[in-house]
This record gives sequence, structure tokens and C-alpha cells, in this order.
Amino acid sequence: MDQSVVIVGGGFGGVGCAHVLAHHGVEVTLLDKNDYHQFQPLLYQLATAQIGLPDLARPLRGIFAKSDSVRVVTGEVTAIDPTAHTVELADGTGFSGDALVLAAGAQPNFFGVPGAAEHAFPLYSVEDAERVRSRLLGALDAVDSEPELVDRGGLTIVIVGAGPTGVETAGAFAETIRDIVPGAYENLPVEKARIVLVDHSDVVLGAFSERAQHYAAERLEADGVELRLGVGVSEVANGHVVLSDGSTITTRTVIWAGGEKACDLVGRSGLPTGRGGRVDVEADLGVAGFPGVYVVGDAANVPGPDGDTLPQLGSVALQSGRWAAQNILAVAAGEPSKPFDYHDKGIMAMIGRNAAVAELGTKRHEIDGPFAYAAWLGVHASLLEGTRQKLSALMTWGWDYASKRRPRALADRPDASVIDWDDD
Amino acid sequence: MDQSVVIVGGGFGGVGCAHVLAHHGVEVTLLDKNDYHQFQPLLYQLATAQIGLPDLARPLRGIFAKSDSVRVVTGEVTAIDPTAHTVELADGTGFSGDALVLAAGAQPNFFGVPGAAEHAFPLYSVEDAERVRSRLLGALDAVDSEPELVDRGGLTIVIVGAGPTGVETAGAFAETIRDIVPGAYENLPVEKARIVLVDHSDVVLGAFSERAQHYAAERLEADGVELRLGVGVSEVANGHVVLSDGSTITTRTVIWAGGEKACDLVGRSGLPTGRGGRVDVEADLGVAGFPGVYVVGDAANVPGPDGDTLPQLGSVALQSGRWAAQNILAVAAGEPSKPFDYHDKGIMAMIGRNAAVAELGTKRHEIDGPFAYAAWLGVHASLLEGTRQKLSALMTWGWDYASKRRPRALADRPDASVIDWDDD
Repeated sequence: MDQSVVIVGGGFGGVGCAHVLAHHGVEVTLLDKNDYHQFQPLLYQLATAQIGLPDLARPLRGIFAKSDSVRVVTGEVTAIDPTAHTVELADGTGFSGDALVLAAGAQPNFFGVPGAAEHAFPLYSVEDAERVRSRLLGALDAVDSEPELVDRGGLTIVIVGAGPTGVETAGAFAETIRDIVPGAYENLPVEKARIVLVDHSDVVLGAFSERAQHYAAERLEADGVELRLGVGVSEVANGHVVLSDGSTITTRTVIWAGGEKACDLVGRSGLPTGRGGRVDVEADLGVAGFPGVYVVGDAANVPGPDGDTLPQLGSVALQSGRWAAQNILAVAAGEPSKPFDYHDKGIMAMIGRNAAVAELGTKRHEIDGPFAYAAWLGVHASLLEGTRQKLSALMTWGWDYASKRRPRALADRPDASVIDWDDD
Repeated sequence: MDQSVVIVGGGFGGVGCAHVLAHHGVEVTLLDKNDYHQFQPLLYQLATAQIGLPDLARPLRGIFAKSDSVRVVTGEVTAIDPTAHTVELADGTGFSGDALVLAAGAQPNFFGVPGAAEHAFPLYSVEDAERVRSRLLGALDAVDSEPELVDRGGLTIVIVGAGPTGVETAGAFAETIRDIVPGAYENLPVEKARIVLVDHSDVVLGAFSERAQHYAAERLEADGVELRLGVGVSEVANGHVVLSDGSTITTRTVIWAGGEKACDLVGRSGLPTGRGGRVDVEADLGVAGFPGVYVVGDAANVPGPDGDTLPQLGSVALQSGRWAAQNILAVAAGEPSKPFDYHDKGIMAMIGRNAAVAELGTKRHEIDGPFAYAAWLGVHASLLEGTRQKLSALMTWGWDYASKRRPRALADRPDASVIDWDDD
């Protein structure tokens, strides 16, 4: 059939959609501001130097090298017309298609907390993660040279948000400081390092079962992570954060795992938005009043089976992207589109070496400990694009597990590694 | 013994020196502006996305994690006092030792060619290589979107200098464009891509035998590389280069493989310098008039067996660094220092898939073709620090060889990937 589809965004949603359409010979234009696909679930491992950039990023052109009908264009989409099905890039180039799929992802939501956008490090892109890694290594270097900087927050890492990203990041930081510091740094007062996990809720991993929450909290505390639950963050400054109970934590590294919202492009699109600035989509992932427009992944409020909204997860993005493609094909063939049917594969969070929580399948079978860790590795490796990346990532993990080394501990983002030791 | 040594630079020379001193329990302070060691012989592979950063860079702290007597400090050395054996970092911190080893490496030598420093891409650091990769991918993207940009040099790569670096880079670019373009780019007029290798000498690989020179020239031309020999570069501008015969080449990507000189720090050190701004060292790698000071690797004019100066090679840097350490140990033990005895392992250059030239051992046994390619792989893998890196690099090469893929083709340096299409 002579269909053409424009897809905005090369994450799980956009790539999943393009794969299905390409399989049916539909002409696809896939737009992304980067020339690569990012594997977001493991960003915290890039941030803590457990894996390297090539394990997490893959060229979009490489993914679709054998798909003749997919055209990859690198450029930032600045405007969308959901009625005309046109999009425009920053350089003025325009694209249009019979259908338009918006898979533009999200951005950090700082909820208006003063100073957060300036001073906190988000963890949503590979660039974010490389900046966190450079900051961590820069701080360790600086305190090793001048140990009294520990009293100015040099070894204090504050993580805001105790969802899966925050918990995984806290666990990985604890492990990293424990593993890479001995031997590598001579003067570092490692016993003074603090990792503080802050959340306004009273529990970690709010979406998980009580048992998983308890297990995760115990493991984190056993790893030396300080839990500050039931308090929010009122302010982030250069040198400290202020909590909602009035207390202050002196720190030079604040990681923002406190939530996401749709990116600005979505807000400017004229599409109806709801919670988190995301587009409210119909059951079939289309948008009421805009025929031929589909929104998938983190850019959409995707309806779940019980009338609720599905969480912002890679598996939701991937499945919704593929589903939108199927509906585009159905409509073009004169058939009705179908409501999205999410196959819930469960939720997981890795806390550290040999420790993870997982609730698998629709029955929410709970596992934790080493088996959950193994499941976590397997599931994430299987999601990686390309055999080469799977092998490399598994080899990296296996090697790290055995050797406790961090061959990727490189501070290559000077804007983040050089610390301003003044206080606001 | 209660010796202390300050080493400036964490390349082959500095790391080789620190390894030997650490083995004898000498207190070493190793200073580098980066927190990582770079494997420079393969930078052109990073530039053409054949390998990734983690294959080429290794954390200095990781290398010396088990050496209690080696202290790694990240910081830029801004001043050296070779009489007092002190060095100062940009942040004002000072270090001193019983001996001082200068292993500060080199920087590109633009020989005063107008515009070269602004518009040409050197290839001496991993950052240089990542910028070249981003420029290449940015140019391919731009021409794919707007094919007429090919007439403004979008697909023309000019490489200045036909020594091993220039030859290897030209071969790798030819292979890259041949391998990654088909399928991945829809509108790219790949038949109009030009790779031009310029050298003021009449031959490529001037240091090699005539037979190797002929073989390399033939292979390059068979791969579509245009050789412009016997002409120099008079000017580099945004959009073109001017050659010494008055001709002009329209191009957006100029790679500078045209020579190196010692870095500025060496010139400011007060040490006696000669050719290339490098320090003229004695036979034992010490400096006349400055007892306890040694200069190794690319920062030195290292005397060879016939009174000539050894070339700027990784193996010369590594061996001279180790030798300087042995002399420091000897002098501390009241023994005389020994003149440097270079074990010439030969010279090699890889031209492309299945093609390399190598002159091995003191007998300069010549090999070329697939056997030289295999030798080249083996020798370079064996030089890599750490088993993990060797395995990873060999796996990467093997996989690429079989699949002709470039999973590391990421344009992550926007300053280089975004091209100014105006002409100067």
C-alpha cells in the first residue's frame, strides 16, 4: 500500500513503530534530534561507569540499514501541525505523512522547585548520565586532593525520588563508592561519603508491593544509603538542598529522579494534554479530533486495562509504538483500529550486586535477591537492540561482577566534573 | 628506598615509568589533565566509529588501583621548575619529588599554515577523534537531507600528511564510507564522495621501504583514495583548502595528520629544546644541567642507536618511560645511569580490511597484505592496558570484520557535527 508515516522520536516507541511499519513496506520518516537510539533503563549504570556509551546508544541508521522504506533524519522538531500531519525541523525542513506518530518522550519535571533546573542533574539521556559520571569522578578527585572538601558536601550525593530510577541510582552509587574507591584514591575519607535518598512518600518503590518495599529499604540501608522519606525538596542550591522539614543537606551532587513530564514540543502541538503535560490518547492510541495522529510512550497518557494510566516504562513505550503501527495499517486497509492491549511483563528494580526486586507477569509473582538480579540482567539484555550490544553488555556485566572494576570511569564532560565550591 | 618521583603525563611514557617505579615501591605522583590514559595508535578507529571510547581510554586510577605507592592526581600542569623539581597545577597545588619525569606528550604542529588551527581537525586525543566522528556523521546527515551540499564539499575529506596516521585515517575513511553508507542513507550521492590524501613528499609512508610505499599507494588508490603528493597545504579555510600548487579543494572536513610538536609546557620549562620544540635529552634520557630530570616519549628528542632521533611512536614512549625509571632507581642506589637501548619492534600501518604494511624487528622483515593486517591487530591488542580491554577490542574488531557494522557511529559532539556551510 502507498502509505507514508512520519514518526517523531527514536526511542522505544518510535523505533518499535518504525519496525512494524517497515515490515509492511510503509514509507517511514523517522526524526530524532540525535542520530542514535538510547536505552534509557540503564542510564544509571552509565552514570556510575558500570557500562559505556556504546552499550547504551545505537545508531538509528544502523538499526534501519536493511529497511529500505525507513528514512532516518537527524534534526530537532520545532513545530507540529496535527491537522495537516506536518512537522518542521529547526533548519526549516518540513515533512508530512498520511499518518503522524508522536513518540517524542519526556523531560525531567522539576515541579517548580527553586534551583532544581540549574543545580540538579537529571538522568533521562545519555548526555545526562555522562555528566553525572563526570561530576562523581570530579568530586572524588577534588576531595582526594583536598580532603577537607568533604565538609563542603564533596562526598555527599543526594538523590531526589525513590521510584525505580532513584532506588537503582542510589544502590549503584553505594556500590560504586565501595568498589572503586579502595586503592584508587589515597586520601579520600570514604567513611564520610553519604548517599541520601529523599522522597515525599513514606516508602521507597511506591508502585511495588509492601514486601518489595521493605526488602528494598533494608538492602539500601544495609548498603549505607540514608533514607529520608516523607519529606520533599524545597530548594536546590549550589552547595546544598533544603528539605520540606526545614533541614539542609550540604552536597555538590544532586540527582533528580523526581519525575518527568512531556517535552515542550507536545505542549505546543495543539493536542489535548492532561496529567504531566502528556497527550490524552484514546483507547486505540489515536487522538480525538485528529484522525491519523497517534501518540505513544512517555509523551502520552496511555490508558490501562482498569481505566487508569499506564506508567512511563520502556515496555509501555515499545508496545504502544508497535500497536499504533498496527492500527495505522488496519485503518489504511479499511479495518477498524483496536484498543491498546498492554501485556504487563511486570516491574523490576535492581538495588545492587545480587539484589533486586521484581514483580513479574500479571500475577505479580514476587521475587527478590539474587534470582531477581539474574532476571533483571536477562530481561534488560534481551531488550537491547542488536546481538552485538547484547553480547557486549552481558560481557561487561559479567566481567564487572567478577572483577569489581570500573574501566569506564572517565570524566570526559568538563562542564560537570569541575565543581564550583562556593555556596549560593 | 625513600625515593619520591613526580611524573607529568599519563600516556605510554608516564604509565610505563610509573609501573616500574611502583614495582620497586617508589612513591610516585602521576599528574595528567585527564583522569584517563589514552591509547593513541587507534584514534583513527575511534574517529571512524570502528571502536568506542571505552576501548581506547582507561582510568589512570584503575590502572594503579593496586599500586599503593602511586598517587594519581587529575589536573593541568601549568608550570615546571626543573631545578627545584617542582610542578604546579592550574588550581595552584604544588608537587615536588627527588626526581621529575616529563612525559607530557605532544600537540599538533600546524607549521603556521593559515587557518589550519581553526578549521582542521587534529587527531591526537580521544576528544579530537570524537569530534572527527561527529563531523563525519554530521556531514553524511546533512548531505542525505540536502544532496546538493555535496558540491559544497559535504562529502570531501582532505587528510593532510601521509605518514602512518594519515594513511591509516584515509584507509579507514574509505572503508567507512563504503561500509556504512549503503542502506543507511537514502539520498546520499556516495559516488561523489572524495577522500584526498595530501603530502609535500613524493611518497606515502616516507619512513617505510619503497616496496611498502608502493603497496600502500596502490591499495589506497584501489580503495578510491586520491593521492596528492608533492604538494603542501598553503591555507585551510571554512569550506576549502588551498594547496601549494595553487589548486583548491572544496571540503568541510580537513584532518590534520601533518606533524606534532612538544606541548607548550615543555617550551616554558626552561629545558633545552631542539627539533619540534622537544627537549634534547642525553643518552640516559636525563637533561644536561638538570640532574634528576628525565624527559621521555613525544616530549623528547630521544637519541637512537645511530645518533639520529627516534620517531614519535608509542613503543618509543613506553620503553623510554620504563628506561627512565630504571635510571632513577640506579642513581638512587648509587649506580651509574645507562644509555637508552631501544628495542625496535618495527613499524606498521593498517590500510584497511585485510591490508597493512609492517616492517618487523631490527631486520626490517617486510610483510604486507592479510598477514600484516593480522600482525597489526595482534600487536595493538597486546599493547592495550588490561585483559578486559584486550578482549573487548578484539571482539569488536572480529565482529566488525564479519558484519561490516558500525554500532558506534554516534554524533555526540554537536560543536563538530553542526557544519557552517558558508565559505570564508
